[in-house]
Amino acid sequence: MSKFQPRNPEFESNIIERLKGQHFMHLMGFDLQSIKAGEIIGEMNLEQHHLQQFGYVHGGVTATILDITMGFAAFSLVPVGFGTVTANISVDYFHPGQGEKIMAIGKVEKAGKSMMFCTGEVYAINKNEKKLIATARSVMAVVDAKKH
Amino acid sequence: MSKFQPRNPEFESNIIERLKGQHFMHLMGFDLQSIKAGEIIGEMNLEQHHLQQFGYVHGGVTATILDITMGFAAFSLVPVGFGTVTANISVDYFHPGQGEKIMAIGKVEKAGKSMMFCTGEVYAINKNEKKLIATARSVMAVVDAKKH
Amino acid sequence: MSKFQPRNPEFESNIIERLKGQHFMHLMGFDLQSIKAGEIIGEMNLEQHHLQQFGYVHGGVTATILDITMGFAAFSLVPVGFGTVTANISVDYFHPGQGEKIMAIGKVEKAGKSMMFCTGEVYAINKNEKKLIATARSVMAVVDAKKH
Amino acid sequence: MSKFQPRNPEFESNIIERLKGQHFMHLMGFDLQSIKAGEIIGEMNLEQHHLQQFGYVHGGVTATILDITMGFAAFSLVPVGFGTVTANISVDYFHPGQGEKIMAIGKVEKAGKSMMFCTGEVYAINKNEKKLIATARSVMAVVDAKKH
Repeated sequence: MSKFQPRNPEFESNIIERLKGQHFMHLMGFDLQSIKAGEIIGEMNLEQHHLQQFGYVHGGVTATILDITMGFAAFSLVPVGFGTVTANISVDYFHPGQGEKIMAIGKVEKAGKSMMFCTGEVYAINKNEKKLIATARSVMAVVDAKKH
Repeated sequence: MSKFQPRNPEFESNIIERLKGQHFMHLMGFDLQSIKAGEIIGEMNLEQHHLQQFGYVHGGVTATILDITMGFAAFSLVPVGFGTVTANISVDYFHPGQGEKIMAIGKVEKAGKSMMFCTGEVYAINKNEKKLIATARSVMAVVDAKKH
Repeated sequence: MSKFQPRNPEFESNIIERLKGQHFMHLMGFDLQSIKAGEIIGEMNLEQHHLQQFGYVHGGVTATILDITMGFAAFSLVPVGFGTVTANISVDYFHPGQGEKIMAIGKVEKAGKSMMFCTGEVYAINKNEKKLIATARSVMAVVDAKKH
Repeated sequence: MSKFQPRNPEFESNIIERLKGQHFMHLMGFDLQSIKAGEIIGEMNLEQHHLQQFGYVHGGVTATILDITMGFAAFSLVPVGFGTVTANISVDYFHPGQGEKIMAIGKVEKAGKSMMFCTGEVYAINKNEKKLIATARSVMAVVDAKKH
């Protein structure tokens, strides 16, 4: 069970609604698997268009799915009428990513009124192996949803 | 003129060669405009598939073009036989991005033997206006090119 | 001249007042040399108690004077009745620091209503040489001054 | 038990030896409580000289004890003849720090040959309460010990 109480009872359907407009996420082929208050998990099959010149997952792909899962994790905890935008994201790349799938987990670590601190992890999945290839942290700003 | 002396005289043609394998960059439609020792500039036209649900450039797009330009800026300064990988990238989002084009500049700030420190900027371009929407810094690790 | 208009006409005297309570800054011996809207400069003489085991400036000293100058740079731009707290600071260490003095410059890059993005630089000064040893960026949160 | 195998069997006595030259750490009054391969814990009593103008722990104090514990955690895992220097440190401040003591934990998350990725936590301790006030991550560069 999540350590957080959502302040918007409809956070899950609101996230599903917002996913429709995530054009860049759709271009990549990434999708969410689990939506909980303060924790979002998503994954995608790795295809050639996700790679860079050495056959590894592009660092931009990794950063993008971290931003998406941490961003929706933060959004899951704001009150009705509010949204979140990324103020700062930092990604540490532990290992080159290779495999069949890539999975991202975004979590809220501290939920403030105007700001949320999140962490994220990306795993490359290959047969039965699951390898941590990157970690991240971010500051998400809570904003008036009418403007964002 | 650049403050850096490239140690690989063919860095420009090496970068152009590597661009061919940048599948994710091609998926996005981003391309390099200027390749100098320690400084790389690229841009792309903004299309719907670069956006998130509010019509702004996706934060992952911004992070990706920063990673690409800073990564090649670092690569332009390594000796023959070496490459670079991103160890850590951090992006600050100043403003939501909107416009016709988006442009990224990646620069090396300090070129060490095993590590390079870079900075980057992303501008949204609309008619005659050029707006700084994000800045970044990164640590790029210098690695043996045979392995990467 | 600064690119920023201060919203508190007494920001300079307010900063001078706040410096009195900066006990850790006094323990270190750091002092401000220049207070402008959006830009703060300070310096100190390097003594043995600022060093680590190899005779270089301790990374914590560098981080502290970056936090102080960026924090007051952000504070110089908030309206009357508001303060700032550091949400996130990131420091890149370019070179080991050695010399007679150490100087820090903190600047605001983007001043938002609830958040400020800052950058900082630290120089080691030795005779006539001034060497950039570290750079930083930070997110400063704007808070109600009654609480902080 | 640690997930890491130290490559220097005398890492603990080497760390204790290095602590003698940590002049800034001694100025602050911080000391290590636990030295394990890949994990270092330290603490100190909070005194007025650790504070800023609102009676909270100075952000520079928090950054310093994170740098020390993460730095020695990285050092505990390098081979004989090598050392570590901080390349980049990033600190997220969750809550203002107040209390009787402050404690820092530094851990290695990924130990590479030329680079280590670490995380850190700082707790404010007051009577029986232990509150997480800051988290951090860092990139530590592995260097030739003769030079550092």
